[in-house]
Amino acid sequence: MLIVMNRGASDAQIDAVIHRIREAGLSEHVSRGVERTIIGAIGDERRLEPETFELLPGVEQAMHIVKQYKIVAREWHKEDTVIDIAGVKLGGNAVQVIGGPCSVETQEQMNLAADHVAAAGCKLMRGGAFKPRTSPYTFQGLGVTGLQYFRDAAKRHKLPIVTELMDVRMLDTFMEWDVDVIQIGTRNMQNFDLLKEVGKVNKPVILKRGMSATISEWLMSAEYIAAGGNHNIIFCERGIRTFETAYRNVLDVTAIPVLKKETHLPVIVDPSHAGGKAWMVPALSRAAVAAGADGLLIEMHPNPCEAWCDADQALTPQELKDLNGTLALIAQAIGRQLNG
Amino acid sequence: MLIVMNRGASDAQIDAVIHRIREAGLSEHVSRGVERTIIGAIGDERRLEPETFELLPGVEQAMHIVKQYKIVAREWHKEDTVIDIAGVKLGGNAVQVIGGPCSVETQEQMNLAADHVAAAGCKLMRGGAFKPRTSPYTFQGLGVTGLQYFRDAAKRHKLPIVTELMDVRMLDTFMEWDVDVIQIGTRNMQNFDLLKEVGKVNKPVILKRGMSATISEWLMSAEYIAAGGNHNIIFCERGIRTFETAYRNVLDVTAIPVLKKETHLPVIVDPSHAGGKAWMVPALSRAAVAAGADGLLIEMHPNPCEAWCDADQALTPQELKDLNGTLALIAQAIGRQLNG
Amino acid sequence: MLIVMNRGASDAQIDAVIHRIREAGLSEHVSRGVERTIIGAIGDERRLEPETFELLPGVEQAMHIVKQYKIVAREWHKEDTVIDIAGVKLGGNAVQVIGGPCSVETQEQMNLAADHVAAAGCKLMRGGAFKPRTSPYTFQGLGVTGLQYFRDAAKRHKLPIVTELMDVRMLDTFMEWDVDVIQIGTRNMQNFDLLKEVGKVNKPVILKRGMSATISEWLMSAEYIAAGGNHNIIFCERGIRTFETAYRNVLDVTAIPVLKKETHLPVIVDPSHAGGKAWMVPALSRAAVAAGADGLLIEMHPNPCEAWCDADQALTPQELKDLNGTLALIAQAIGRQLNG
Amino acid sequence: MLIVMNRGASDAQIDAVIHRIREAGLSEHVSRGVERTIIGAIGDERRLEPETFELLPGVEQAMHIVKQYKIVAREWHKEDTVIDIAGVKLGGNAVQVIGGPCSVETQEQMNLAADHVAAAGCKLMRGGAFKPRTSPYTFQGLGVTGLQYFRDAAKRHKLPIVTELMDVRMLDTFMEWDVDVIQIGTRNMQNFDLLKEVGKVNKPVILKRGMSATISEWLMSAEYIAAGGNHNIIFCERGIRTFETAYRNVLDVTAIPVLKKETHLPVIVDPSHAGGKAWMVPALSRAAVAAGADGLLIEMHPNPCEAWCDADQALTPQELKDLNGTLALIAQAIGRQLNG
Repeated sequence: MLIVMNRGASDAQIDAVIHRIREAGLSEHVSRGVERTIIGAIGDERRLEPETFELLPGVEQAMHIVKQYKIVAREWHKEDTVIDIAGVKLGGNAVQVIGGPCSVETQEQMNLAADHVAAAGCKLMRGGAFKPRTSPYTFQGLGVTGLQYFRDAAKRHKLPIVTELMDVRMLDTFMEWDVDVIQIGTRNMQNFDLLKEVGKVNKPVILKRGMSATISEWLMSAEYIAAGGNHNIIFCERGIRTFETAYRNVLDVTAIPVLKKETHLPVIVDPSHAGGKAWMVPALSRAAVAAGADGLLIEMHPNPCEAWCDADQALTPQELKDLNGTLALIAQAIGRQLNG
Repeated sequence: MLIVMNRGASDAQIDAVIHRIREAGLSEHVSRGVERTIIGAIGDERRLEPETFELLPGVEQAMHIVKQYKIVAREWHKEDTVIDIAGVKLGGNAVQVIGGPCSVETQEQMNLAADHVAAAGCKLMRGGAFKPRTSPYTFQGLGVTGLQYFRDAAKRHKLPIVTELMDVRMLDTFMEWDVDVIQIGTRNMQNFDLLKEVGKVNKPVILKRGMSATISEWLMSAEYIAAGGNHNIIFCERGIRTFETAYRNVLDVTAIPVLKKETHLPVIVDPSHAGGKAWMVPALSRAAVAAGADGLLIEMHPNPCEAWCDADQALTPQELKDLNGTLALIAQAIGRQLNG
Repeated sequence: MLIVMNRGASDAQIDAVIHRIREAGLSEHVSRGVERTIIGAIGDERRLEPETFELLPGVEQAMHIVKQYKIVAREWHKEDTVIDIAGVKLGGNAVQVIGGPCSVETQEQMNLAADHVAAAGCKLMRGGAFKPRTSPYTFQGLGVTGLQYFRDAAKRHKLPIVTELMDVRMLDTFMEWDVDVIQIGTRNMQNFDLLKEVGKVNKPVILKRGMSATISEWLMSAEYIAAGGNHNIIFCERGIRTFETAYRNVLDVTAIPVLKKETHLPVIVDPSHAGGKAWMVPALSRAAVAAGADGLLIEMHPNPCEAWCDADQALTPQELKDLNGTLALIAQAIGRQLNG
Repeated sequence: MLIVMNRGASDAQIDAVIHRIREAGLSEHVSRGVERTIIGAIGDERRLEPETFELLPGVEQAMHIVKQYKIVAREWHKEDTVIDIAGVKLGGNAVQVIGGPCSVETQEQMNLAADHVAAAGCKLMRGGAFKPRTSPYTFQGLGVTGLQYFRDAAKRHKLPIVTELMDVRMLDTFMEWDVDVIQIGTRNMQNFDLLKEVGKVNKPVILKRGMSATISEWLMSAEYIAAGGNHNIIFCERGIRTFETAYRNVLDVTAIPVLKKETHLPVIVDPSHAGGKAWMVPALSRAAVAAGADGLLIEMHPNPCEAWCDADQALTPQELKDLNGTLALIAQAIGRQLNG
């Protein structure tokens, strides 16, 4: 950690900072410049918090130099992590498109959806049994019944399933139904108790970015999961909140190369929630794959007009199939393989 | 709901929209303009979702006209709600300053804090036993022991206590320790399962605004609590996330008059987390009271330099007392009474 | 325009709204719903402003239904506009990469840069003679001398030149030096007097998006130029300002398909300023082309380490060449041609 | 400046950084920590740019420690600057309310407005002759005729006038009409050529904050003016752009204490543009004064319903008078005097 003193900070003030560094078991390195004295704390700086220095008299600013995340950091784990999802590889050379409806509605709808997902060449399937909805008066998901429909539909094509966990009390149920990938949604990215619990199980976790979460906070949330022992974490960029009102969210493609630099874990993108409209999905999907994403979470509904929620963002089966065709070429252009 | 058709939408497309409106049990009202046809859906529009119309061919845009929240809306409940917190009134003419440390540390610290809170003239006390922290490697709060220390310290001055609930599994414990006001933190504003549970108990709830939550989403989260039967909800503005990096968050004072117009429920402000620095707290507190806030959540620590977290945002006991003096004059200037 | 009345608005209030609509030469269409009365204004609504209605008693909200831009709107001009830049086509099937240094430094640097730009296969060259800098104490560009260096270097390869105009008083000089494309920078997107002036000349204009400009404001700024008679406008997305601090700006790829839907004019992307680091440029460039951009503005410097400004965002000549190779494949994957 | 090296940076990489520091005429100070080596550049770091270091191999991050603004910084000028506007003092103990219409419409309207501004106790008057409008098809201001009407109306009450300059070519006209305070609008905060020109005249300048300008960028824009010789600069906070759509902008009250700490220059607030609705103005005005603003820019129209633009944000004469009454009490509560 670096502590920058105010211009004209007194020797006594500098000593107080040094005293506190030593108290924490670290040592100091003092650099007296023309306009500022800067004090470096040498040792494991994760044990220090900038705020405890910033309130000392004469201190202008204190900042961490070393990143606060460790297990998820590429700095400590150079090679890409490839996650095995019931035999399907996510990360590395392959780019996986995970298709399926926003929410589980009926057994028939899920069977049909699974047929189309498999026919489009996807190796993984998504669908929501528990739905986070802004309004308490709208459809909240089928719950456990939905898990059952999903499990049954997917096993006909041996598709591993991805579904969202909202309530920590449902984790056991998720394990019983053998959900292959647990999704932590945007609104729960900093639900720390939930993160701690999924950190204790052995299932891969998709961690969606909070609506206005910084890259650093997102990595720290992954670190919460990793610290519990579960290192099978997949980041999912799903659009961030900005001032723009012409579309729901702004898909942050820059996050893809930045995350790939900061962490060894895979990064996927959800173009459906980002734009909020089906007609935007192909362009956003192509951009994500071109930028280096390891996968996509795409909403597809057997009959979008009849979908029970987010109807306007689901692709038709044919659109998904066509999109996969284009994405395969883009993946190839950058030396990767789609749905490999 | 209004459905705006594209220029040149066909009669068949218009009929399809009308068909869907009638299917949902509402009736339509068609207005053919020079450039656009607009269709109004007449009836209980809460049963319709704009997306299900926006994917129909020929539809440009669909929008709700009526607000989606009802129980919390001033439209349906004109007079201000005053909440009774173990005998202390929040809302109406009084402005309550809720003081106390960021986190519960020791029995001694809490006793001292309670003494100072009472001496400063405050009628309510705050303190955190469970702490949401960005990093898994920092102090996470004392937990149940913290509740005990807090309860014991506060009862010596008959101060009702306010503390944050993060995990739905701890709600029973909160009820056992008779927490007077349950605080739902920023990161849990859309933790819908948690909202549903606190909606079933009879304790007042402080609902902090999500870091980038719109006023409308915030009101909808309150509606989740209210829909469960608990109408004792207090909104707490705590700063929003913006592009600015010179301070932690931007305190959104405009939210105060806007909420007072939209809802009958009280609105308080947390100036400590908003600015993130103790030296900003007096200015922000004065602004909040002047703008019409019904209360403040202010961090005060018997000895800020020794605080275990967020040390740089806590006032000293003397600073809190002095601030109360100024706030009393500002409250008076707008016809209200501080800590009344 | 639609005017939504408050619940319980009186007949007199409704009449006052109608009176004002008629005064402006439009006619009204009144729709009385269960909870709200809605009044539509029929006629040329560009002559009305929502605010003049929102202050009338009983009015809850007034909103435009028809877009405020006309000349630039695809609604009134269905086919894509292809802009001819001294013989090079921008828009349509081709994707043009415009390469060159951030700023003009010396004749030698510009000659070398032009050689590399041409060698990489680019058909257009960029470079700044007038530089908008946050600090008054940093290099502000070579000015007119820079235009001369640039013009001389580019003509050796018959490369049309793109350079930024900051001061309306320099427009004549730009015309004298026969600048092929006038760039209006981010900070001047709403410098309306400047827009009006470039609207009167016959040179193509690149209009960069303001740092926090909405799509709608951006289109309106283009409309300012178009209203003057100059319809050769190219939109340039260059990243928007958000809460994220890990990179300079967030490249908004969603803007690409959305603009392509709203306007017939070409859309290019500046990946260099968006990310702010050379290592991010390839990923962002690939994403932009994949999303459907008609071109890219890429910074390349013969020797980035010696660049006089923004050194860390320029590609080397070899990096630009390599990137063009990959982009050609991506363009092909979506049926387009790079630097065609 | 501090340069943080990557973990495992080589000695040769460290030497290259040192070489570049010495080349610029500064000296280095190397601190080798457990995980990182940090190099401080000692001397006038304004001559260095972080980017020129960040592209050197082995460098993780480079950052300025000293602020880039100097003339406007409180660090170098401890006492508050009080600006004399034709005899009226702005800054120091007084809080000035500057009232007047959004735009100049007719001589009669301006005479009436001036009467009401004076009657409400204000010492300064505002009004726009040149109006920045998002659409080219709306009223753009009366121009020079407007200046004349304004000047004539204001002199009857000896009210110094404040009006916006948009086009650098009009500066001479502003000097001829003896405009007392030149306002630089939000959209021109980084119109550097305009800033340089107003830096050369001897009139006070109100510098409005850009819609998404950071405090640091805003201070640097003021530094542009100051560097030209004109130190009579007044900052005006007018709301920032965020994700919130329930109101036009978010008034950033935190900017007030932060600017007061960073600069010796006065800070005023425009509550009318911030909220965008007249009914929000009283609450925002009270908040601004309570937070420590040195003045307010408030829109008042003799007859808001007839205003030619922004009608819904103007107070009536009576509302302005009443608001001044409350503001006087709040100013007094914090030891200041309204319109003194």
